[in-house]
Amino acid sequence: MTTLHITQQKQQVFTKMVLDTWASKLNQFDKLLSELSDEQLLKEVAPGRNRGIYLLGHLTALADSIFPLLGYEKLAPQLFQPFVHLPDQKNGDLPAISELRQEWTKVKTVLAEKMAAIPADEWFQKHTSISAEDFEKEPHRNKLNVVLSRVGHVDYHLGQLQFLKTK
Amino acid sequence: MTTLHITQQKQQVFTKMVLDTWASKLNQFDKLLSELSDEQLLKEVAPGRNRGIYLLGHLTALADSIFPLLGYEKLAPQLFQPFVHLPDQKNGDLPAISELRQEWTKVKTVLAEKMAAIPADEWFQKHTSISAEDFEKEPHRNKLNVVLSRVGHVDYHLGQLQFLKTK
Repeated sequence: MTTLHITQQKQQVFTKMVLDTWASKLNQFDKLLSELSDEQLLKEVAPGRNRGIYLLGHLTALADSIFPLLGYEKLAPQLFQPFVHLPDQKNGDLPAISELRQEWTKVKTVLAEKMAAIPADEWFQKHTSISAEDFEKEPHRNKLNVVLSRVGHVDYHLGQLQFLKTK
Repeated sequence: MTTLHITQQKQQVFTKMVLDTWASKLNQFDKLLSELSDEQLLKEVAPGRNRGIYLLGHLTALADSIFPLLGYEKLAPQLFQPFVHLPDQKNGDLPAISELRQEWTKVKTVLAEKMAAIPADEWFQKHTSISAEDFEKEPHRNKLNVVLSRVGHVDYHLGQLQFLKTK
């Protein structure tokens, strides 16, 4: 095996590690969503904290915000203002939960398709919001790192959302 | 630059991505702990859910359980039974919070030292709980993946623990 093959193999192994972790988080979120009724999603996850509907919109908007970093257009840009910029209960008329569930499924599905089409090598290129100069000094700020940094964000809110389940 | 150098550089980039993410989570947990009083940690994070003290012991025990996977001895094995095997409120007499804070600091500090001493190449070798045969087929089940999989776990509980902070 040549050294070049080893490099390619390592890249593939590492890309698989991160993308599998991301996919498993999204599956966990999907499963939780399927277990929660619209009525449960209208409740606060803990007294005085965000409602389920807000976290559903928030996670959808944040997953959607990965598209531009990889060089694609957002699918649900209208969700960013009410579910990221503004706090819950101060964000006016929100879409129906059925609509948010659909937006989530759309974003998740298309994102998975786009991600699967990116070759291992390209994951290690710079994402769109870092300059070529900075990237030279900090090569870990690549496209794959965008996904890696979002894994934790999904988990952070999953831990809260599961409080909506009855024990 | 030779291809071998490129391989080494790529490996260093991979390990830095994961280890930096891990370190930043632990710092986030540390910061939150410093902001929470012992009294706050004795409260449930949400009605009928785990208390802060349980999650502190739980996160310490789970970080401690990384040592054997990397080939080292656990530092606080006594925490596994009450904070992982048993649920909160059914786990008998717990250590004082001051003691748990010390255990956390010890585990976190020594783990960081051990991790920093592992060369990039070794992170891509198999962890101790997978057979050489399985590892041949699934090379992503390496030491670095152990750390990667724990990042999300910390975040999951951080999202819950921050409910203990007064708004």
